[in-house]
Amino acid sequence: MLPLHLQPESHIPLYVQLRDQLRALVHTGELRDGDRIPASRELAGQLGVHRTTVANAYAELESEGLIRGHVGRGTFICGKPPRQFSPPPRSNGHGGATRWESLFADDRGDEALARLLPDIPPGAIAFTCVRPPESHYPVEEFRRCANAVLRKEGRRILQLGSTDGYEPLKRGLLEMLEREGLSVRNEQLLITDGCQQALDLICKAFLRPGDSVAVENPAYPGAPAIFIGARVRILPVSVETDARRTGYAGISLDALESVLLQNRVKFIFATPDFQNPTGTALPLAQRRQLLEIAAHYQVPIIEDAIYSRVRLRGTALPTLKALDRTGNVIQIDSFSKISFPGLRVGWAIGAESAIERLRLVKLATDLHTDQLAQATLAEFLRRGVLARHLGKMKKLYLHRLEAMEAALAKHMPDGTTWTRPDGGMSVWVTLPAGLDATELLIHVRERGVYFIPGRTFYSQNPQPNTIRLSFGSLDEKEILRGAQIIGDQLRIELRKRQRGERHNGMSRVALV
Amino acid sequence: MLPLHLQPESHIPLYVQLRDQLRALVHTGELRDGDRIPASRELAGQLGVHRTTVANAYAELESEGLIRGHVGRGTFICGKPPRQFSPPPRSNGHGGATRWESLFADDRGDEALARLLPDIPPGAIAFTCVRPPESHYPVEEFRRCANAVLRKEGRRILQLGSTDGYEPLKRGLLEMLEREGLSVRNEQLLITDGCQQALDLICKAFLRPGDSVAVENPAYPGAPAIFIGARVRILPVSVETDARRTGYAGISLDALESVLLQNRVKFIFATPDFQNPTGTALPLAQRRQLLEIAAHYQVPIIEDAIYSRVRLRGTALPTLKALDRTGNVIQIDSFSKISFPGLRVGWAIGAESAIERLRLVKLATDLHTDQLAQATLAEFLRRGVLARHLGKMKKLYLHRLEAMEAALAKHMPDGTTWTRPDGGMSVWVTLPAGLDATELLIHVRERGVYFIPGRTFYSQNPQPNTIRLSFGSLDEKEILRGAQIIGDQLRIELRKRQRGERHNGMSRVALV
Repeated sequence: MLPLHLQPESHIPLYVQLRDQLRALVHTGELRDGDRIPASRELAGQLGVHRTTVANAYAELESEGLIRGHVGRGTFICGKPPRQFSPPPRSNGHGGATRWESLFADDRGDEALARLLPDIPPGAIAFTCVRPPESHYPVEEFRRCANAVLRKEGRRILQLGSTDGYEPLKRGLLEMLEREGLSVRNEQLLITDGCQQALDLICKAFLRPGDSVAVENPAYPGAPAIFIGARVRILPVSVETDARRTGYAGISLDALESVLLQNRVKFIFATPDFQNPTGTALPLAQRRQLLEIAAHYQVPIIEDAIYSRVRLRGTALPTLKALDRTGNVIQIDSFSKISFPGLRVGWAIGAESAIERLRLVKLATDLHTDQLAQATLAEFLRRGVLARHLGKMKKLYLHRLEAMEAALAKHMPDGTTWTRPDGGMSVWVTLPAGLDATELLIHVRERGVYFIPGRTFYSQNPQPNTIRLSFGSLDEKEILRGAQIIGDQLRIELRKRQRGERHNGMSRVALV
Repeated sequence: MLPLHLQPESHIPLYVQLRDQLRALVHTGELRDGDRIPASRELAGQLGVHRTTVANAYAELESEGLIRGHVGRGTFICGKPPRQFSPPPRSNGHGGATRWESLFADDRGDEALARLLPDIPPGAIAFTCVRPPESHYPVEEFRRCANAVLRKEGRRILQLGSTDGYEPLKRGLLEMLEREGLSVRNEQLLITDGCQQALDLICKAFLRPGDSVAVENPAYPGAPAIFIGARVRILPVSVETDARRTGYAGISLDALESVLLQNRVKFIFATPDFQNPTGTALPLAQRRQLLEIAAHYQVPIIEDAIYSRVRLRGTALPTLKALDRTGNVIQIDSFSKISFPGLRVGWAIGAESAIERLRLVKLATDLHTDQLAQATLAEFLRRGVLARHLGKMKKLYLHRLEAMEAALAKHMPDGTTWTRPDGGMSVWVTLPAGLDATELLIHVRERGVYFIPGRTFYSQNPQPNTIRLSFGSLDEKEILRGAQIIGDQLRIELRKRQRGERHNGMSRVALV
């Protein structure tokens, strides 16, 4: 075991402590050239920290040239350039089966993303889904759109297309954005296979291994998954979830500025509208301030606007891109939340030079986005079906959000708090300190209720007593029943604690 | 200028020469810590070599820790760990417009890929296209398939789907593969957004910056573009195009073995069936030998099978995957060449552990492939329309191939040779030594004829006197007329040379 001692209470981030202690061990000679150090997963387990903490420390040390990963063999201290390669001895010419595991490039960050899609038995009450419910899809109108475009322009749709997007869809999107108050030129718009791909393209175009990105913590795990996969360091920025305490909800500007002061940061990743998982929306003044901070530190922003059109009450706020005067923001967006996630169509808006770069990267990634989906969505937009459909869905979501709030107020025990989103599809619930959402899930699952424990969304310092409850796919009755089951179980857990039952796992967690 | 002297005639690859000379300059102290060295593009220009040569040398030196790229600043000699970061001085809080160019992660290899899609004026004779001609698309039958699946399973199609693929399409593909003699389990098949994405996912899952991949040279530029973008080193392996001289056509097994002997190689990328651009198909004995070599050196193979179903004459050969007994091959394939490139649907077949890894990487890349395209293609396959359509297209392509061969025999001057493909969509033409295809293109373009100069397909040692002529999109008359125009121009160029006209650019090239 390495002599490492991390102090969770310290103001110094855990990964910085770990990085500095490992560096010191090399400098004092306790770790030497060629020494193997534990895999990030293993060391995280030993230290009782999140794997991202270790991964971040290793990424820094690797970029300094102090350690070096050898796929399939492990991570090693590296003072000298690696030895020359000598070919393997001539064998019998018939090697055995390939051990693919030994070839994996690295541990990747997709696990959290995979956890967002648990197997849910039929009939369960699943607070897990942030996808529009298919029961309300206007399939017949969509089918007519598909028919119309295949009749009118079938050959063009089925032939190889343009990397920047299918022209009628681009035109329709530019008009929609114009109506919403955002003037964008054709050269500033790139069609992608959804937000996830937009982020992947940005990562490829602009980020190198060892670069750093400031990311909301908690955040949608799809963003960290991409950065971790590209060996980009994630600098977590906390999210204010209690506006009464801090004056606003959304990405913490103090935390952000502190990260920008202490690190060379290549991008800020932020979701000002109905952030997943917290549901928070950054107020206008803080949006302006965020842009000013970014401009001051000369760090561009990736704005995830995927929920910006899913505002259910209150007045719409301009997106960061709409407020951006310097071309500092790349906005990524998608049809997933406003229409159908089964069609993988999204877009990115940014300065012309940035979009041109992303276009070249997309060309090498998948040539272009599927044109049948693009053409049909263009028609869906052109006929006004999208706007009508979204209007109906927003009414439905609002009823469900109100039912969610009523159910929480009715069933949650004292000491439980939750965010008050004006849009999106999720409420973020904080249980009384010491309770563990994963433990809670084990119990309520037996009664047919599912949710995503909040820890899934953290890239650092996961809060075990948080929960994401998504309401978009459940009707009012299911929401009420689900909240009641969660509330009942919470009361049981709280009583156990009061009785001082020390043999219970959840109580143990409370003592740590 | 750095004191570098490369010898193109040497048996030592140019990038190895460059790498060793740069390393020596550091060791002798002529290059010191912090010294800036030219960008790869710049140095390539100075040395008169291909940029990939410099990029490969730099990639090796970087993986040795001897040089280090700083985005926006350049590449530097690096003996010591980089200096600590200090934050920028507090400015006026209103930075100017973002200079996105300064943020690009690196020079990427997409240019060659972009050159494959030149702007062609209407009415031109374009030997540039390897896409199926849209004039023959069975749009009406396709539209009926789209209608049927949207009627039957519209909600499921439009809802978020499974990362490994839409189940009815996977089932259909497994049945098709079974009929073709390849037994694959569901867990060994991943649906992707085409071959290009399959390669991108493989790159993310298995390759790290500085890793090496053996790639056919010349090759379809989409493969090198992905590897270069991921800072993976490309080790070019020559392709035999003259079976009469070497006994077979296709990837050179001698060259491959020599690359595997001298380098630690992570993957072999090969296209045994109707390789783009050369049209060569590796004979059965050489396929077996390729698998043996790969097994001996324990290097897995990525098999690009995109043209394997576009065999126009002769007997079909088993793919590498069909011959693979050890799980050493990942085969990538697509609907692009057998149906419609505008739908981005392809697949990868491999060992279960490899496919599971690719699935997780795909989840983080774009969640899943568009389901409307998947479902419609599944129906297109199920109804037998795909097989009928492909049968018709193959007849059409065969006529065009025969017309191409007749036209070349009739119009090409002596000293011109070309491959005799039995499938695919391209013939590879080698002009008399000393002629330059780019120069030729400038002249024939004026007469409305377009082709892709062969140099576009090389990652090293481009042969300026090679041409890819793709016949799939042209009718017999256009092919004959186009070949005549090319032949006429070639005769003009040859006469110029005979007259000893030294002022002409093409002749100058001939003297080098």
